[in-house]
Amino acid sequence: MSHSPMKVVVIGGVAAGPKVASKVIRLRPDTEVTIVEKGEFLSYAGCGLPYYVSGVVKEQAELMSTPVGVVRDSVFFQKVKNVHVMNHTEATKIDRAKRRVQVRNGNGNDDRYTESWLGYDKLVLATGGTPVVPPLDGIKLDNIFTLHGVHDAEGIKNLLAQDKARDVVIVGGGLIGVEATEALVAKGCRVTIVEMLPQILNMLDWEIAKLVEQHMESHGVKVLTSTRVESFEGNGRVTSVVTTRGTLPADMVILSIGVRPNVKLARDAGLDIGVTGAIKVDQQMCTSDPDIFAAGDCVECTDLLTGNPCYVPLGSTANKQGRVAANNLCGQPDVFPGVLGSTVCRVFDYCIARTGLTEKAAVAEGYDVVTAMAPAPDKAHFMPEAKPLLLKLVADKASRRLLGAQATGSGTADKRIDVAAMAITARMTLDELANADLCYAPPYAPAMDNIITAANVARNKLDGYLVGISPTEVHQMIESQADFVFLDVRSPAEYGQVQLPGTTLIPLGTLRQRLGELPKDKEIITFCKISLRGYEAALILRAAGFEKVRVMDGGVAMWPFEKTTSHLKDPTHLRKKHGARPHIPHA
Amino acid sequence: MSHSPMKVVVIGGVAAGPKVASKVIRLRPDTEVTIVEKGEFLSYAGCGLPYYVSGVVKEQAELMSTPVGVVRDSVFFQKVKNVHVMNHTEATKIDRAKRRVQVRNGNGNDDRYTESWLGYDKLVLATGGTPVVPPLDGIKLDNIFTLHGVHDAEGIKNLLAQDKARDVVIVGGGLIGVEATEALVAKGCRVTIVEMLPQILNMLDWEIAKLVEQHMESHGVKVLTSTRVESFEGNGRVTSVVTTRGTLPADMVILSIGVRPNVKLARDAGLDIGVTGAIKVDQQMCTSDPDIFAAGDCVECTDLLTGNPCYVPLGSTANKQGRVAANNLCGQPDVFPGVLGSTVCRVFDYCIARTGLTEKAAVAEGYDVVTAMAPAPDKAHFMPEAKPLLLKLVADKASRRLLGAQATGSGTADKRIDVAAMAITARMTLDELANADLCYAPPYAPAMDNIITAANVARNKLDGYLVGISPTEVHQMIESQADFVFLDVRSPAEYGQVQLPGTTLIPLGTLRQRLGELPKDKEIITFCKISLRGYEAALILRAAGFEKVRVMDGGVAMWPFEKTTSHLKDPTHLRKKHGARPHIPHA
Repeated sequence: MSHSPMKVVVIGGVAAGPKVASKVIRLRPDTEVTIVEKGEFLSYAGCGLPYYVSGVVKEQAELMSTPVGVVRDSVFFQKVKNVHVMNHTEATKIDRAKRRVQVRNGNGNDDRYTESWLGYDKLVLATGGTPVVPPLDGIKLDNIFTLHGVHDAEGIKNLLAQDKARDVVIVGGGLIGVEATEALVAKGCRVTIVEMLPQILNMLDWEIAKLVEQHMESHGVKVLTSTRVESFEGNGRVTSVVTTRGTLPADMVILSIGVRPNVKLARDAGLDIGVTGAIKVDQQMCTSDPDIFAAGDCVECTDLLTGNPCYVPLGSTANKQGRVAANNLCGQPDVFPGVLGSTVCRVFDYCIARTGLTEKAAVAEGYDVVTAMAPAPDKAHFMPEAKPLLLKLVADKASRRLLGAQATGSGTADKRIDVAAMAITARMTLDELANADLCYAPPYAPAMDNIITAANVARNKLDGYLVGISPTEVHQMIESQADFVFLDVRSPAEYGQVQLPGTTLIPLGTLRQRLGELPKDKEIITFCKISLRGYEAALILRAAGFEKVRVMDGGVAMWPFEKTTSHLKDPTHLRKKHGARPHIPHA
Repeated sequence: MSHSPMKVVVIGGVAAGPKVASKVIRLRPDTEVTIVEKGEFLSYAGCGLPYYVSGVVKEQAELMSTPVGVVRDSVFFQKVKNVHVMNHTEATKIDRAKRRVQVRNGNGNDDRYTESWLGYDKLVLATGGTPVVPPLDGIKLDNIFTLHGVHDAEGIKNLLAQDKARDVVIVGGGLIGVEATEALVAKGCRVTIVEMLPQILNMLDWEIAKLVEQHMESHGVKVLTSTRVESFEGNGRVTSVVTTRGTLPADMVILSIGVRPNVKLARDAGLDIGVTGAIKVDQQMCTSDPDIFAAGDCVECTDLLTGNPCYVPLGSTANKQGRVAANNLCGQPDVFPGVLGSTVCRVFDYCIARTGLTEKAAVAEGYDVVTAMAPAPDKAHFMPEAKPLLLKLVADKASRRLLGAQATGSGTADKRIDVAAMAITARMTLDELANADLCYAPPYAPAMDNIITAANVARNKLDGYLVGISPTEVHQMIESQADFVFLDVRSPAEYGQVQLPGTTLIPLGTLRQRLGELPKDKEIITFCKISLRGYEAALILRAAGFEKVRVMDGGVAMWPFEKTTSHLKDPTHLRKKHGARPHIPHA
């Protein structure tokens, strides 16, 4: 055993790397910690780049400062943290036998560099990820960007500042592109998103993604799904994007297809790579070499629910993993159990959040699922600040456990999805979730919080009181001209504002008196704005001997297809009379 | 067995009662359900009354409407729900042997009433609570209100509209009074809160309540704690309030002392009453009579953590209990497991929320606790909308389980407290909480969510890396002139803006070079704005051989005593230079 200080080399200085370095020094102040960073910048908030592009974040430096405004540069790391930083330095090879890393210091200039070896007792790989750049014709044209680093952001900002980006095409309906859309529209760009799959944001179920697409389209964004980009055209700089649905003009292109883990160094060193293509680590964040740890966007995670390997690169996960890696590296046992893919983003007025399994993922995993769609105001409905929240839960029929949750709308989706993430982590049933003691006051939640109502909708289905049908199935029935009654039980005033196709209107309050108007031999599918009255209607019908009755999940508020909107002279007169707020789910 | 429809009588029509009635009809549509309500109004949102007083909610009717604006009156209940409503009707006696309830219909007029008996198969008591009115001299004077029913709200609104309430005294620092304060100040009232205990909002620990008091005082509210009201004076209407600390002028008084359960009917019928004075029920919400259920503000709850009986009347709980009562009453087994006392309220710019045990309650329960104070921006600190959130966690040293959480500040406290409530319900340890996969994007949370950081602070304490000391203990040391170094490691600019008493300033970045200035024999207590740099300073000092070093919990941001504030000519020049946002914890 040596009494000389432990030497820790950290490769990568963006998120997980600095976290490991700082934590190691806190745990064992006598350690010699070196961060090797290829770029100039350290510890910057990559996820803040869309807000730097939009100008919400005014200066680049803010993305790399502490909350009290100190820039985390190499001087800061040295003086405050006692961490040595080598930036403009690339790690080129790991010599595991001799426990040393070859580094090349280029000082930003590839032609003149110096090579040297850094010895380590423990090595940490925090090499991050790289945005996917498809090998298409014209991909090297100017003004085609990813939005991953500060340089990308500067390039996009420059074009915007010069008013040279009138037509922008975002390739891929991934998170970064969707987040950047608002900034681009605010700058006057005409934005088109081109997505290969039938929906954007594949982390959501189709009908939730459609609600987001409708919202983006209401802000002038064109969303082309099931559309593939074939090539880019231009002369020096990009001028158009050729897709399977025609050629789109483009002064600027942003690639938002996804991120791939940077694993070359690890693979070359013979470390295990997982099925997702990311570095394989155990719960201690240790690679297949006990002296090499890894954390952040370069590693593979475990899905907490399924136990499957997954790749979900996020700054929050990187920070947690960095802490766990540092603890174990210093001999303080710690585990990182895994992730649920919890994600949130803002797109115009909508907050979009999700956790756990989508319905499609759960079905693919072999679960027999029950779902609930619960649109409702996110606060007491009489509060002016109440906003619509469109919530979907996915649960396992057999165990009644929550498997996943998705939410969108202008209401506070993030809060409900965080609660859902906790419920899934704790393996709670819908019954346990429905009785959770969540905070209630009118400015913050309805008396029955949205997620509790959603859990109760799913329980009503499981217990046989509510027989649901998804809007997609109803839409298919309409398309195939199936013979059924599509029963709208809203008020005439609500009906006057927006209608679904082929409906019959019998307001709930008159239903008991008008049962004779309905056929007993046909299927009846009931709905209202949010399908609570639709549920009550179905119960009245069933009690009256109607046997084939189903309730459409989510009502008008979560109908992901076209609606007919009327513009009445005074659609609000009934609301005024009854004193309701205008801030109720969009109908 | 009878084939005639089941008869259910529900006594009380505000929150739990209508919930039970609606749910019973949904489960068994052939049931005959009758609601007996003493007042005129049904199903109104009592917790919305402060917002009706303030004018945020414009019309009374909004508090008793469905989200789509239909007033839940007796016609609504009959037509839509098939529930019979008898309002202006008081239940006066339960004849358990004959399963019938005596009711007196007064039609709003006590002199002329009719008495009759209603038979039941199942009876539900949802008799609610009544605000405590202390038996003090002058209590009957005009313009002394509670804020419990619509009539109270109208009385207060009338006085405000006539500009006849310049000086308002709120007796008791309870939730309702604190919530009403903002509305009163907005109307131009001078508001004084008089509280018997050393703090308002006894659901919080002292130092968190002090932060709320400081905030209220910054909005011109006078808070008199440890002050008892002795009597009210006036001539017909109240003109002053006599307290142990002098006489206060008062044009209006609002009593906010608490709520007592209405149990006379239950007690007279010989039903079991719990130690809290509320009706005793089992987890099925059944009273000691198997044909009588009870729910809402009249029943005793179980504390989920301690198993102790408790009385926490809340509209959210009432709704959940109503559903459970209805399920069991209809033969569908269901349980209401208990509560954590989760509560949220808004006071001026602050959101105040809490769940589980406070530190004082946990200590009283015999727990050996560890606490964490974690002030930080509630979103990525570079986002302009980031706001300070002051978070306190209480955990059990032995099991490392979270016991309670409290939060205040202008940040989104409710989200973090809902997450904490889920963690406590699931009996999670701090270690599990610290790795929870919560949603992250800059507009919604820091990369390490506030509650995760707080959990990590507590873990650092449990693992011996962080030795903390509460601000209260430090204050006592200052008061008793103890000999120690109170080491501020913030920047000179921050120091220039606000100072704590008797401190020595050595900015963190210079500490390693200036160790010689500090005595090795004295205790050193470090802090910064939020005590993260304070923690780093303590680690540097310990590594350098200083043995008696502690970190003050919560730093300047959560110091509940007086601070010295300087008004520099340009206190922002350093921030500008470094690009930090102004929206960082109040310092």
